[in-house]
Amino acid sequence: MLENYSLGEIATFLNAELRGDPETRISGLNTLQNAGSNELAFLANEKYVSQLANSSAAAIIISAKHSAADSYCGALLILDNPYLGYAQISKWFDTAPQALARVHPTAVIDKAAVVGANVDIGPNVVVEANVVIGANCYLGAGSYIGARSQLGEGTRIAANVSIYHDVSIGCSSTIHSGSVIGADGFGFAPDGAGSWQKIYQIGGVVIGDRVEIGACTTIDRGALGDTCIGDGVIIDNHVQIAHNVSVGDNTAMAAYSGAAGSATIGKNCIFAGDACVVGHVNICDNVTVMARTLVTKSLTKPGSYSSGMPFMGTREWRKNAVRISQLDDMARRLKALEKNT
Amino acid sequence: MLENYSLGEIATFLNAELRGDPETRISGLNTLQNAGSNELAFLANEKYVSQLANSSAAAIIISAKHSAADSYCGALLILDNPYLGYAQISKWFDTAPQALARVHPTAVIDKAAVVGANVDIGPNVVVEANVVIGANCYLGAGSYIGARSQLGEGTRIAANVSIYHDVSIGCSSTIHSGSVIGADGFGFAPDGAGSWQKIYQIGGVVIGDRVEIGACTTIDRGALGDTCIGDGVIIDNHVQIAHNVSVGDNTAMAAYSGAAGSATIGKNCIFAGDACVVGHVNICDNVTVMARTLVTKSLTKPGSYSSGMPFMGTREWRKNAVRISQLDDMARRLKALEKNT
Amino acid sequence: MLENYSLGEIATFLNAELRGDPETRISGLNTLQNAGSNELAFLANEKYVSQLANSSAAAIIISAKHSAADSYCGALLILDNPYLGYAQISKWFDTAPQALARVHPTAVIDKAAVVGANVDIGPNVVVEANVVIGANCYLGAGSYIGARSQLGEGTRIAANVSIYHDVSIGCSSTIHSGSVIGADGFGFAPDGAGSWQKIYQIGGVVIGDRVEIGACTTIDRGALGDTCIGDGVIIDNHVQIAHNVSVGDNTAMAAYSGAAGSATIGKNCIFAGDACVVGHVNICDNVTVMARTLVTKSLTKPGSYSSGMPFMGTREWRKNAVRISQLDDMARRLKALEKNT
Repeated sequence: MLENYSLGEIATFLNAELRGDPETRISGLNTLQNAGSNELAFLANEKYVSQLANSSAAAIIISAKHSAADSYCGALLILDNPYLGYAQISKWFDTAPQALARVHPTAVIDKAAVVGANVDIGPNVVVEANVVIGANCYLGAGSYIGARSQLGEGTRIAANVSIYHDVSIGCSSTIHSGSVIGADGFGFAPDGAGSWQKIYQIGGVVIGDRVEIGACTTIDRGALGDTCIGDGVIIDNHVQIAHNVSVGDNTAMAAYSGAAGSATIGKNCIFAGDACVVGHVNICDNVTVMARTLVTKSLTKPGSYSSGMPFMGTREWRKNAVRISQLDDMARRLKALEKNT
Repeated sequence: MLENYSLGEIATFLNAELRGDPETRISGLNTLQNAGSNELAFLANEKYVSQLANSSAAAIIISAKHSAADSYCGALLILDNPYLGYAQISKWFDTAPQALARVHPTAVIDKAAVVGANVDIGPNVVVEANVVIGANCYLGAGSYIGARSQLGEGTRIAANVSIYHDVSIGCSSTIHSGSVIGADGFGFAPDGAGSWQKIYQIGGVVIGDRVEIGACTTIDRGALGDTCIGDGVIIDNHVQIAHNVSVGDNTAMAAYSGAAGSATIGKNCIFAGDACVVGHVNICDNVTVMARTLVTKSLTKPGSYSSGMPFMGTREWRKNAVRISQLDDMARRLKALEKNT
Repeated sequence: MLENYSLGEIATFLNAELRGDPETRISGLNTLQNAGSNELAFLANEKYVSQLANSSAAAIIISAKHSAADSYCGALLILDNPYLGYAQISKWFDTAPQALARVHPTAVIDKAAVVGANVDIGPNVVVEANVVIGANCYLGAGSYIGARSQLGEGTRIAANVSIYHDVSIGCSSTIHSGSVIGADGFGFAPDGAGSWQKIYQIGGVVIGDRVEIGACTTIDRGALGDTCIGDGVIIDNHVQIAHNVSVGDNTAMAAYSGAAGSATIGKNCIFAGDACVVGHVNICDNVTVMARTLVTKSLTKPGSYSSGMPFMGTREWRKNAVRISQLDDMARRLKALEKNT
């Protein structure tokens, strides 16, 4: 581990009640089960209570409710929300290399780009004309920033990210490797003779502050006007955001989730893995879409929505699945029987 | 905006009837709702007719049918197919930076590569031995072109695209960032002892003219013989085309759609989002596959095909989903009842 | 073709019985249907037996059972498992350019990295501090290897791959272009005020020997502890492996398949295309998950599991799909009828 900290300073940072020696040194963060004798652990889920007894952790972030467990004899950091406490302290133990203040000599930066103070621009980064890079930004090796795009202060772009022209990203946001922001939306008009006429995508992308975007995710530029991602949105890997989609503040989208063209998603929504929404549909705030659900109509009521088939043994599945194509017939026959009895 | 045009030259290009002053200058393209007083808009969808009244657009591309609407007092460009007209004129207002005629000094180009006239090869591009790059091609920063691959005239490869060896791409095609053409197909033989023996993928990829390929899309090389993409095919982001697949001319494949090994897809098909086809299956021309459908058998009849569960509130869904595993049983019981009554 | 070989040496390598002239020169490998008169073909599937008669192949890898077919008059290589024989010999005909022993002058290699003998490091590769690259490794153009990561002997990283810090990859493994190993897992805690608190992902990724990973695939680093991929695992394109997932030896995962956080997948499992498993679920060894299935519970019994809707014509589908939301009601009505009759 790179650093170690005293339990006292950790308790102060977390605003936690400390039961134990504030001078104890903590050099790592780990699970109850795997924590070593100079590591910090946490109990955030009822089902791991039984692991308290055998934990070797130097200290545990825990709720008052569980703090009486006499099975564990190390130090305690008592908090209302131990999971949040774990999340907050995790940064102290981050292993990601520190950003430097340097522009690597192999970076290709246009003379008409504006680069803020204290940036870390890695090898082979390409920054095109009229780009604005805020102070304290990090641009990983091989990343590309197209003309006139902007990054707010403290934003981190990992290696091999591609950002097209006219993309605006706010402050303290992160984009992981392989992601592509501002590629053309999928817009084509049938030309009446069997071919497709490309619709040039002349809008941009606007991404807010404190947004996290995973790896291999795509956010397309607008056809006319911008594709918009609000503040505090968190987006996982392999997500697809089509042209002119709007995603509200603090919405979470897990892997493979997506939104087709011009869909709008409200604030504080949760899209589980592979949850998608078709185009030109509006989803209100506070909607949860369960894994593998396809939302095909606008939703005006907060709540949880699902589709997706239950899984079963393949033999059993084969028998049942064939009945799905008979369902309408079955429903009619059932109705007829009801009439007759 | 970079340029502006007279309404007269736009009308001539579109072959549209102009009602208004041909000298009016147009500096942008926008929606009915958002167009400013020197921008062009279009009406292509019945449901936006009501926006005519309040549009500030300088001119509107419109069908004869709607041209009588006296609610709008700007200029009109009358066309049979306003959506196609919008698509055609969109290129005039494209904001993508113009290609240059240059080979950036950081590009690494093998001596045995042949590079046509007037190409734009960006920073850190790598072009391997015996590659042929046609005239007027654009290769974005960090893109890689493997040995013996070919790009036809006017083809555009965005930043950070990876093209393996022995890939042939036609003229006027476009590939967006993060996409990978010619990676190994997923071919392995069980070795009889619980492990997998790799099957080296010795075929290539052949892509036609006027093909557009989105971001983070993969088209694998053939195991034996080539994976083939016809002319005029349009492919969105996150699409997977496995080894030895063949996609017919002018077929459209939306995000997350895909084809497993050796599937053939006909001409003028439409795959909606996440519509996939299993391997070794043939789909005839003019088939539409709706969102999230998995095609598991060959299709010999043009038309529209679907699968996918309807979505509902999660509570309601739970009650119904559990019945799916009882469907076969329900069908048998229903039949028994019918016999008894 | 780059090389040619005698039938005799091929038979010896495959340990096959040769019926024909061992001096015959073979310059390629192809299908029964497409093989030319100096190419080798194979018969591994009953349904292609009829192609024997018209094959122009110089020789065919075939089982004893089919070797009596007098419709074909070329040479035979008789093997118990012709498909495995084809797989084994395929490497001899591979068209991928040979690796060189060179470090390209544009590569940026930290002074504190350790690079083994005989490596091929391509243009614009970036290798960070304390990385260890084993002998005979290949690093394609533009790939990035983060601090302290390790590659075992003979491992191949294609162009534009991104590997973060603290990732360990074994020997003789392959990673295709666009893939991202070690990006942050999707870990955030609700902060109680509607926003998300990032959980820094301080674990790493450990990948075994002889692993193949396709293009545009993501394997996230662990939150605490490592994400683990066993030996001999084969992973296709667009696969998502979330933080702290464990995948057992020799498991195969086809395109779009995935595992959410902390799921464990046993050895020798097969995930077909788009087969996914939710988080914190355990799948035992020798499980097959059929295409588009979502596994939502732990599986303790080997076997095949399915979900996914059957596909049908869209008109027919519409009629049946609407009944799915009536299923629970239908089941109750059916039960009532049974009581009454």
